[in-house]
Amino acid sequence: MKIVVLKFGGTSVGSIKKIKNVAKIIKAYHKKRYKLIVVSSAMSGVTNELVKKSKDISDNFSSSEYDVLVSSGEQVACSLIAARLIHIGLKSRSWLSWQIPIMTEGYHKNSKINLINKNKILNYLKKGGIPIVTGFQGINENERITTIGRGGSDASAIMLAKFFKAERCVIYTDVEGVYTTDPNKLKKAKKIKIISYEEMLEMASLGAKVMQPVSIQDARLNRIDIEVKSSFIKKSGTLITKRKNITKNKIITGLSSTQNDAKVTLVGVKDKPGVAAMIFKPLSKNLINVDMVVQNISANGKETDLTFTIKREDLSKTKKIISENKNINYRRLLFDKNVSKVSIIGVGMVATPGVTFRMFQALASQKINIQVISTSEIKISVLISSKNVKKALITLHKEFKLER
Amino acid sequence: MKIVVLKFGGTSVGSIKKIKNVAKIIKAYHKKRYKLIVVSSAMSGVTNELVKKSKDISDNFSSSEYDVLVSSGEQVACSLIAARLIHIGLKSRSWLSWQIPIMTEGYHKNSKINLINKNKILNYLKKGGIPIVTGFQGINENERITTIGRGGSDASAIMLAKFFKAERCVIYTDVEGVYTTDPNKLKKAKKIKIISYEEMLEMASLGAKVMQPVSIQDARLNRIDIEVKSSFIKKSGTLITKRKNITKNKIITGLSSTQNDAKVTLVGVKDKPGVAAMIFKPLSKNLINVDMVVQNISANGKETDLTFTIKREDLSKTKKIISENKNINYRRLLFDKNVSKVSIIGVGMVATPGVTFRMFQALASQKINIQVISTSEIKISVLISSKNVKKALITLHKEFKLER
Repeated sequence: MKIVVLKFGGTSVGSIKKIKNVAKIIKAYHKKRYKLIVVSSAMSGVTNELVKKSKDISDNFSSSEYDVLVSSGEQVACSLIAARLIHIGLKSRSWLSWQIPIMTEGYHKNSKINLINKNKILNYLKKGGIPIVTGFQGINENERITTIGRGGSDASAIMLAKFFKAERCVIYTDVEGVYTTDPNKLKKAKKIKIISYEEMLEMASLGAKVMQPVSIQDARLNRIDIEVKSSFIKKSGTLITKRKNITKNKIITGLSSTQNDAKVTLVGVKDKPGVAAMIFKPLSKNLINVDMVVQNISANGKETDLTFTIKREDLSKTKKIISENKNINYRRLLFDKNVSKVSIIGVGMVATPGVTFRMFQALASQKINIQVISTSEIKISVLISSKNVKKALITLHKEFKLER
Repeated sequence: MKIVVLKFGGTSVGSIKKIKNVAKIIKAYHKKRYKLIVVSSAMSGVTNELVKKSKDISDNFSSSEYDVLVSSGEQVACSLIAARLIHIGLKSRSWLSWQIPIMTEGYHKNSKINLINKNKILNYLKKGGIPIVTGFQGINENERITTIGRGGSDASAIMLAKFFKAERCVIYTDVEGVYTTDPNKLKKAKKIKIISYEEMLEMASLGAKVMQPVSIQDARLNRIDIEVKSSFIKKSGTLITKRKNITKNKIITGLSSTQNDAKVTLVGVKDKPGVAAMIFKPLSKNLINVDMVVQNISANGKETDLTFTIKREDLSKTKKIISENKNINYRRLLFDKNVSKVSIIGVGMVATPGVTFRMFQALASQKINIQVISTSEIKISVLISSKNVKKALITLHKEFKLER
């Protein structure tokens, strides 16, 4: 049985007109003789309305009742889609998570799907039906409704694809796919046709808002091909797949930039083993994520400067922790809020020498000063002054021929 | 275990403010040491919005998906009530019909509760919890959501009261109780403190809009005391109970009047056995309900006049059926749309001679002509010209001392 999972996001089902359009997309797929499992989010805006109600009822709204409340949104969307498919002559029905069931573990508002019972849905597929499954939710072992904390309906789609061994998972959303860089920041950004999970993970965690990293990671672990595309425009989207499916590698697949970093520098730290740990341990305890780190080679062998980046929102908390911690010795504490991280991402760089040099040279040619560098196998990130981000993106996009 | 079922209608939970008020009512009841089972309708307006969506999706919306769609309204209301109770320090949770489960039989959109599993709710009550149960719905043997055709959430409340052997079922609504007659038609109408099921059934089916007859009948069959009261005003409402609980019987408990009757007269019908059946059979087949019937004594023993009343909306259909049916012989067919039925209702009339006389005399004193009469053990109805209804209500209300 060739199964494809189709997932529609909130904007794709955001009005009656859009739901009718979604039904047409499903019908077109159905004609290709795939067995379809459809997953839907709530109509856009609905979840926010429900959340507002919850806040008006209590500033400490019960999390188990919160899940009952917001999960109603997907129930509505799924019944409308199923009814529309029936209207245009297809066999369809809504499947609520308790009817399948989709089992979750973890806490309310923050659960994770751990088991999907396949029997009923498989039986329904065999009879030629198109099941419309509520995304973003499941039930726990006490038969209470739960919602999925991270990844939402995307995570539901990926897990359905996993359990039903789907050939592909198509994520319909309001963007056309994944771009070489944020099209809002750079007009020349181009849609990427094919990208590896690893690259997508770097793109996603660095700011591409197409899919949550947790869902991409789940897809990677289960080798599920994901296609991200728009439900409004008839164009192919971006295929996210395993590296070996990508035959024609470009050196660099995409660029990303951040907007909410801050740089912290401790000047004159004692240069002895364990000093970095002493600084980062209390930050980690306070759930402050340290991203880039650089330690200068000390001139006299006794003192060093330590620089790291954090999220801008964590800055005041970080200041407080460091200045109140008597174990950390340093001469001066410096901060900079006006920094941004610009990264080039591509599996191709593994096999291509000189990528780092080309990146640095391109930035230097624009007189952009690099403050911190961090690299991974498929990514090179540099911290620069925020005012230079746009210039950096233009230069790097051109340097690595991303406009094709 | 002394159990009381509290049911809140759509207007009672129609806003966040009203839901907070409902939580206060529940808390006050809880302090009286009753075990409570709460049933809620959807917030007023919500069901209509969902129905509108369904009509926009399809003029022939799947009835099974319709039930999935509209049942979400009660899910939202119940989660908000439960969360509010938790907020004010009580143990509570929503119970969706599949979680209990509440089992139904019959068709989608028109199901009837036939079984409620008591175990989980009883267990929860024993732990001191206040369950908030979704009204108006259940699941069928295929585990699909169903909605209750007639009686809605009132029917859910009565059936919960039945299965849990509740002492009382309190129906919170937007009226203060049952009145001696419609307060919109007669300002002097008084709230009735106590009324028998039988009287209430007559009141309900004759136009009092407080509760649907089917729910009152269910309560009567199961001997469940119902209290109808307003969720907005702190006043006792109307108790609907068995006759023997009513110690101080007035002769007449209430008056009712209709607004949508029509009178049909067949002049010169052959006076032979079976003629009435021949006329009423095709009407019944077409689901046209014949209410009052009167047949004149024929002067010559050969011909008679047959008069009956129907709903005004069925008039054109009735005309068609009678005129197209060759088996019905008559000389003339007469219609009157401007008729109304006025009734006096009271279990007291059984033991009191002369009630009919007093009614007719009171109407005659106002020069109101009686066109048709029908009587039951606890009710006398007369058909009069619609223009006289108000005058008739004033006269009868005074005659039977309903203003007390």
